[in-house]
Amino acid sequence: MIDFDFSIPTKVLFGVGKLDELKREKLPGKLALVVISNGKTMRERGYLDRVLAALKHQNIDYMIYDKITVNTGKDEVMEAAQFARDNFCDFVLGLGGGSVIDAAKAIALMARNPGDLWDYIVTGSGKGLPVKNAALPIVAILTTAGTGTEADQWMVVTNRALKEMIGFGVPSTFPALSVLDPELMVSVPPFLTAIQGFDAFFQAAEGFIAKIATPISEAFSLQILRLVSKYLPRVVQNGNDLEARTNIALAGLLSGMVQSTSSCTSLHSIEHGLTATHPDLPHGAGLLMLSESYFSFFARYVPDRFIKMAHILGAETDGLPDEEKPLTFVKAMKALQEACGVADLKMSDYGVQIGEMEIVARNAHKTMSNLFAMDRYSLSLKETVDILIQSYK
Amino acid sequence: MIDFDFSIPTKVLFGVGKLDELKREKLPGKLALVVISNGKTMRERGYLDRVLAALKHQNIDYMIYDKITVNTGKDEVMEAAQFARDNFCDFVLGLGGGSVIDAAKAIALMARNPGDLWDYIVTGSGKGLPVKNAALPIVAILTTAGTGTEADQWMVVTNRALKEMIGFGVPSTFPALSVLDPELMVSVPPFLTAIQGFDAFFQAAEGFIAKIATPISEAFSLQILRLVSKYLPRVVQNGNDLEARTNIALAGLLSGMVQSTSSCTSLHSIEHGLTATHPDLPHGAGLLMLSESYFSFFARYVPDRFIKMAHILGAETDGLPDEEKPLTFVKAMKALQEACGVADLKMSDYGVQIGEMEIVARNAHKTMSNLFAMDRYSLSLKETVDILIQSYK
Repeated sequence: MIDFDFSIPTKVLFGVGKLDELKREKLPGKLALVVISNGKTMRERGYLDRVLAALKHQNIDYMIYDKITVNTGKDEVMEAAQFARDNFCDFVLGLGGGSVIDAAKAIALMARNPGDLWDYIVTGSGKGLPVKNAALPIVAILTTAGTGTEADQWMVVTNRALKEMIGFGVPSTFPALSVLDPELMVSVPPFLTAIQGFDAFFQAAEGFIAKIATPISEAFSLQILRLVSKYLPRVVQNGNDLEARTNIALAGLLSGMVQSTSSCTSLHSIEHGLTATHPDLPHGAGLLMLSESYFSFFARYVPDRFIKMAHILGAETDGLPDEEKPLTFVKAMKALQEACGVADLKMSDYGVQIGEMEIVARNAHKTMSNLFAMDRYSLSLKETVDILIQSYK
Repeated sequence: MIDFDFSIPTKVLFGVGKLDELKREKLPGKLALVVISNGKTMRERGYLDRVLAALKHQNIDYMIYDKITVNTGKDEVMEAAQFARDNFCDFVLGLGGGSVIDAAKAIALMARNPGDLWDYIVTGSGKGLPVKNAALPIVAILTTAGTGTEADQWMVVTNRALKEMIGFGVPSTFPALSVLDPELMVSVPPFLTAIQGFDAFFQAAEGFIAKIATPISEAFSLQILRLVSKYLPRVVQNGNDLEARTNIALAGLLSGMVQSTSSCTSLHSIEHGLTATHPDLPHGAGLLMLSESYFSFFARYVPDRFIKMAHILGAETDGLPDEEKPLTFVKAMKALQEACGVADLKMSDYGVQIGEMEIVARNAHKTMSNLFAMDRYSLSLKETVDILIQSYK
């Protein structure tokens, strides 16, 4: 029987030009910690100036923390949280891609709580202590599309010393406000656009086959698959295609809503194992490398849902033997990956060796056990290793 | 290009048995004004006792206001708001159907604002003054399904002296918490079940053809049409069919989300004109009476969307002349009304006379002009009268 809780307390401003509305939108404080990456894009393209101008327009003061790295390191989170506390910042504004927004969430949480982030993380070597205080309010201004962090409570943070890359969140780490302005995304190069778009695709597919899928998450999931299959090849081809950018931004937003109403499954866990042990391997690329063997494995356990997803991708199943029908989803997914130029990514290109697969699988089961629990079939360590080995090129 | 704001800050607990979670759920205050209708059901079926027990379990005090009438009269709202203010209630809990939840919203608003509700109403003879203060937090516990008020900011209140039935809302009139427990809905008799279920159906269809429809509202709308067409005949047949009740409750919830991400159109305006002038005519029944001529009229202006809705209802359009294709939606809708026993409701049975149609149309345009503005074709007064006359039986 249908049974779920729904809560997406984030206000979202979505559309071309929406960044301009920031100066009129009610913001949750008078002193912002503005968080950006350690790269140059936010300054060079003028995005940071536009955000700061909007804050000034509202007489909101700000400090800037500009050291966030790809995959969000725990150490920088702790440093920035201390900085926010010392300066009495009353909200955190993240401007950037998924790593920066996740950093903003983690900083907002640790600015209001004692100890170390890993005291609260509930998997891996996290201590799982209860979070005492609500995070500072969070504002998210996205410059990439795909992680969905703008519409969920989840942050992914990497503890490089421990080689753990873990997803975590509490109700107060939903952003209060998220701004998705596709114009800010036109600078994302084709490869990153493709792998981030596939992150949304996989979150949709995983959310659809997860055992806690709800009728609300299902509507979102199918809409995402439709949008990504139609628009991702276009925007990879031409990054300035604003209609396609907008629709992929929408898919990214909806993928956050899927995570707020369903969950990812163990594909995300296994990928975290890869990136935790090979930090240069981007998360979206890792998901792509694993996707064919992962979904081929699960097709037999959730055949009806695979067939539904196949139909959304335009695949025909009439006349096929029953056992082949769910696999048409995998074929259609591969064709879409080819159309986006990301069908043949290789772990070996990122220094991963085939002998490491058991380490990766153990890491995944230890650090992201919560998502294995969302599968409709419980993957053993050996099966996880097999999926990794089959994915290895 | 896609452009929208999204905000549904309500937490929803959905599913059979969810009322039992109320005793563990964080509630937004220590002294509740519990609002119920002037009928006997909430006491006789023990729903009120269960809610009060949950409050006691949390050491929350309460007062009770039990005079809410069908279609929510303004006078009772003002009386209850004064009562809440005099007693320093810090949140309002509505237990009942759409009218009671709408009353809870209006009471919560007026408990925190000076003057009269009609000072703030923006259409009809409302003065349209800005609302100064946020409403008290609102908790909604639903015992019927269809209005969607559990997931939107809208309340419909009737000023009987002025014969105005007007929808109104501000961001703070979203419920903080809504509980949808289909077990509480099994007592709703077949006719009410049918007309309330069709309220959700029409909100979905109107939201789908409204000019501010968004990709999120569209996903919700199509899901509602699917659910209502599959489950409403079943639950009208057997009110104890808990699977069907659950799915219709879900359709109702989603219809609130449609109103939070799109809007109703002038069908709701015209119906308000009918019920405002004939208070005994239930809102859902009025919508049903108007639906055939209303949607037949609009089919020519939004043909693609009508065809999409027809397909969701299982209609075939292949081989038909183009101008007939959108009308297959109207036929499928009528067939569904027949399956639910509500295809032949008559205005004359509620004392409406054909000579009143211009008065009704003028009332609709005056009191609910905002929804006429959501149509993709701007209905004139004469066309509105024509739709009413064609609907008259």
